[in-house]
Amino acid sequence: MKNVMILGGDGFCGWPTSLHMAAMGWNVLIVDNLSRRSIANRISAASLTPISSIEKRISAAQKIGNINFVNCDIAIQDGLLKETLASFKPDAIVHFAEQRSAPYSMLGDIERKYTLNNNICGTNNLLSSLVELNLRPHIVHLGTMGVYGYNDVYGEIPEGYLDITIKQTNEDATISYPADPGSIYHMTKCLDHTLMQFYVKNWQFQITDLHQGIVWGTDTEITKSDDNLINRFDYDGEYGTVLNRMLCQAQIGHPLTIYGTGGQTRAFIHVSDTAKCIALACEHPANTGEKLRVFNQVSEVRMVRDLANTIHDQTGAEIKYQENPRKEAAENKLKVSNQGLRSLGFEPVLIADGLMSEIKATVAKYQDRIDMTTIQSKARW
Amino acid sequence: MKNVMILGGDGFCGWPTSLHMAAMGWNVLIVDNLSRRSIANRISAASLTPISSIEKRISAAQKIGNINFVNCDIAIQDGLLKETLASFKPDAIVHFAEQRSAPYSMLGDIERKYTLNNNICGTNNLLSSLVELNLRPHIVHLGTMGVYGYNDVYGEIPEGYLDITIKQTNEDATISYPADPGSIYHMTKCLDHTLMQFYVKNWQFQITDLHQGIVWGTDTEITKSDDNLINRFDYDGEYGTVLNRMLCQAQIGHPLTIYGTGGQTRAFIHVSDTAKCIALACEHPANTGEKLRVFNQVSEVRMVRDLANTIHDQTGAEIKYQENPRKEAAENKLKVSNQGLRSLGFEPVLIADGLMSEIKATVAKYQDRIDMTTIQSKARW
Repeated sequence: MKNVMILGGDGFCGWPTSLHMAAMGWNVLIVDNLSRRSIANRISAASLTPISSIEKRISAAQKIGNINFVNCDIAIQDGLLKETLASFKPDAIVHFAEQRSAPYSMLGDIERKYTLNNNICGTNNLLSSLVELNLRPHIVHLGTMGVYGYNDVYGEIPEGYLDITIKQTNEDATISYPADPGSIYHMTKCLDHTLMQFYVKNWQFQITDLHQGIVWGTDTEITKSDDNLINRFDYDGEYGTVLNRMLCQAQIGHPLTIYGTGGQTRAFIHVSDTAKCIALACEHPANTGEKLRVFNQVSEVRMVRDLANTIHDQTGAEIKYQENPRKEAAENKLKVSNQGLRSLGFEPVLIADGLMSEIKATVAKYQDRIDMTTIQSKARW
Repeated sequence: MKNVMILGGDGFCGWPTSLHMAAMGWNVLIVDNLSRRSIANRISAASLTPISSIEKRISAAQKIGNINFVNCDIAIQDGLLKETLASFKPDAIVHFAEQRSAPYSMLGDIERKYTLNNNICGTNNLLSSLVELNLRPHIVHLGTMGVYGYNDVYGEIPEGYLDITIKQTNEDATISYPADPGSIYHMTKCLDHTLMQFYVKNWQFQITDLHQGIVWGTDTEITKSDDNLINRFDYDGEYGTVLNRMLCQAQIGHPLTIYGTGGQTRAFIHVSDTAKCIALACEHPANTGEKLRVFNQVSEVRMVRDLANTIHDQTGAEIKYQENPRKEAAENKLKVSNQGLRSLGFEPVLIADGLMSEIKATVAKYQDRIDMTTIQSKARW
C-alpha cells in the first residue's frame, strides 16, 4: 500500500480528495491545522452544510479506507512537519495547505500578510524539510489558473510554459509562462512556481503543479454516503466560488450578484473531478529533476454572465449587475489546454442541469442556516 | 529636508549608503535588527575590520548629518515597522533588509528557511503596511544580477525586461526577464520581483529594483574618516565576496581559492558606487503605478579566473582550483546593460590597482584578526 500525505486535507477540495484516495487504496495521512474552520469563525461565514469535527470525520472515513490525521501548521510548526514526514515516509504528498481565497487575501493588512506568510513559508518548509530528510516523494501542488492572468495576447493558455522567440538574439526558448496574478492569493501561487522550480533544478524533486479552475459543486459519491463525511459548502462573498454562490442566491430569492458586466470568462471544474485529477497525478508521478510538471486542471470554460443567464432561465432569479470590487478586465476570452490530465485519462464532468439541481437540493436542505449578511464580498481592490 | 528610511542600514552596503545619504543632506533613519552581526557570531565569521557598536556608529555619524536608528526585525515585528513608518513618513525607503549570502542560504535547512522567511515576509510586510497606512514613498530595493541566471541564449542582459515574440500568436510582448536563480538567496530576489510587481500594479507603488553585481571594496571617503564609521569586511567562505576574499587570501599567503575553472563571468561594483547609485535612484524616483523600474547596478564585467591572474601577477599568490561546491555553468559569457543608472549620471569606478591596494592595506592592518578556519565555504549545492 502506498502512503499519501494530504496537506490541507480538511478543506473544501482536500476532504473529498482524501476520501477518494483512501477509497482507492492509498494509506492517507491528513495534515491540517484546521485553519479553514478558524477563518470561517473569524469572518463569521460558516459552511452552509453542517460539517462534522475532524475527529468524527476521520472515524467515519476509516470505514472507507486507511486514513488518519495530524494537527500541524506547516507554515509555523516545521519541526512537527519534519517528524511527521520522517515517520510516515510518504510516496506522494498533495499540497492544499494554502489560504485559497483571493477576496480574503485582499481584505486588509492582516489577510495580505497571513496569506503570503502561510502559503510561501509552508511550501518552502515542506521542500526544505524533505531535502534535510533526503526524501523525494512525488509532490502534487494545487496551483490556480489565476497565475496566467487573463490577457488575449498570448493565445491558448498552454500548460505552464510558453514557446517564444527572443527578439535580440532571434533564438527560440521555452519559458515559464509569464506570471500575471490578480490578487495576493494568486501571487503566492506564482511565487510557489518559481520556488518549486528551483527545488526541482537543484535537488531533483518530482513535482506536479495543478493550475486549477474555479471549483463548483460540493458532493462526491463518498461525501454523500455518511452525514459525518459531508463536505463544506461556502456561499459567502469571500470563500464561496461564483457558481456555487449564484445557485445559493437563486434558491433563497436573492438576486444573482454579478461583478461588472459578467464578461469574465473563466475555467471551471467540479469538485469530484478535482479529487479524480489529483489521484491521476499521484498515480502518474512527474519525472525526477526535469522541469516542474504543470497541468491545467480544468474541465471547461464559461463566461460568468452566461452561467447567470442559465440560472435565471431555470429559476427566474433576478440578475443584479454591481460595480466590480476587483481590478480585472471587464471582458476576456479564454482558451485553455488540459491535454496533460486528459492524456492520463481524465474525462471531465461538465456543468449541466443534473449536478446543478443536486446543489440546489443541498442548499434547500440547509436553507435555514444561511446568513444573509455574508453574501456580499467585503474585499475591495 | 527629505526623509529616507534605510532598512538593513547596519550592513556591508547599508552602512556606507546611510552615511553617503546623510552627508548629502537626507534625514536618514536606519531600521535594522543587527542580524548581520548575529549571523557573524552564529557562524563564527567576524568582520576583519573592527566595526563599532551601532550606538557608537550613530553617535559618530551624527557629525556627518541627520541619522538615527531603530532596532526592528521587519520580517517579524510588523507592528513596530508600521509605527515607525507612520511616525517617520519617509519620502524614500531603501530596502537592504534581506539575508544576502547565497552560500549561507544553502548551508542547510535552518538557513534555507530563515532566508526565505526573512526576505519574502520582510518585503511583503513593508509593502502591505504602506498600503494600510496609505503611504507611497519611493522604494529602492536591492536585487541581484543572479536573478537572470547565466545562460548564453538571451543575449545582452537588459534591465529587468525581455522583448519576445510569442510563437503561437506571433504577437510581440515585453515580459519580466525569465527568472533563473542559482540559490535560495537568489530565488528570494526573483520572488521579490513578482511580489513588488503586483503591488505596483494594484496599489500604484513607485518601486525601483536594483540588480546589483558582486560588491567589492570596503571603504568610502566617509567610512575612512572616523574609526567609529569603519565598514565591515567579510573574507569568510559564506559572506566574503570573491574579489575581497582573494585579495585577503593573497595578503596572508593563502592560495587563491577558485571554484571549478574560474570561468564564471560576473558583474562587479565597488561599494562606494553602491552608495552613489542608490542615492541617484532615490533622487530620481520611479514613476507611480507603471511597471516596476529595474536598473542593473553594475560597473563592469570580469571573469573570476582573470581577476585571480591579475592578483597572482601582482602578489605571486598561488591559485588553487578546487571542485566547485555550487551548481553553476563552468564557463559563461556575460554582457549587461547598465543604461538606466548611467542615464541618471552614474560614472562607474573600475577595478584598478589603486583601490585594490587600498584593500590590501586594510587587510594588512587587521591581519592578526583573521580566522583561517572560516576561509573555505561550508555550503554545498
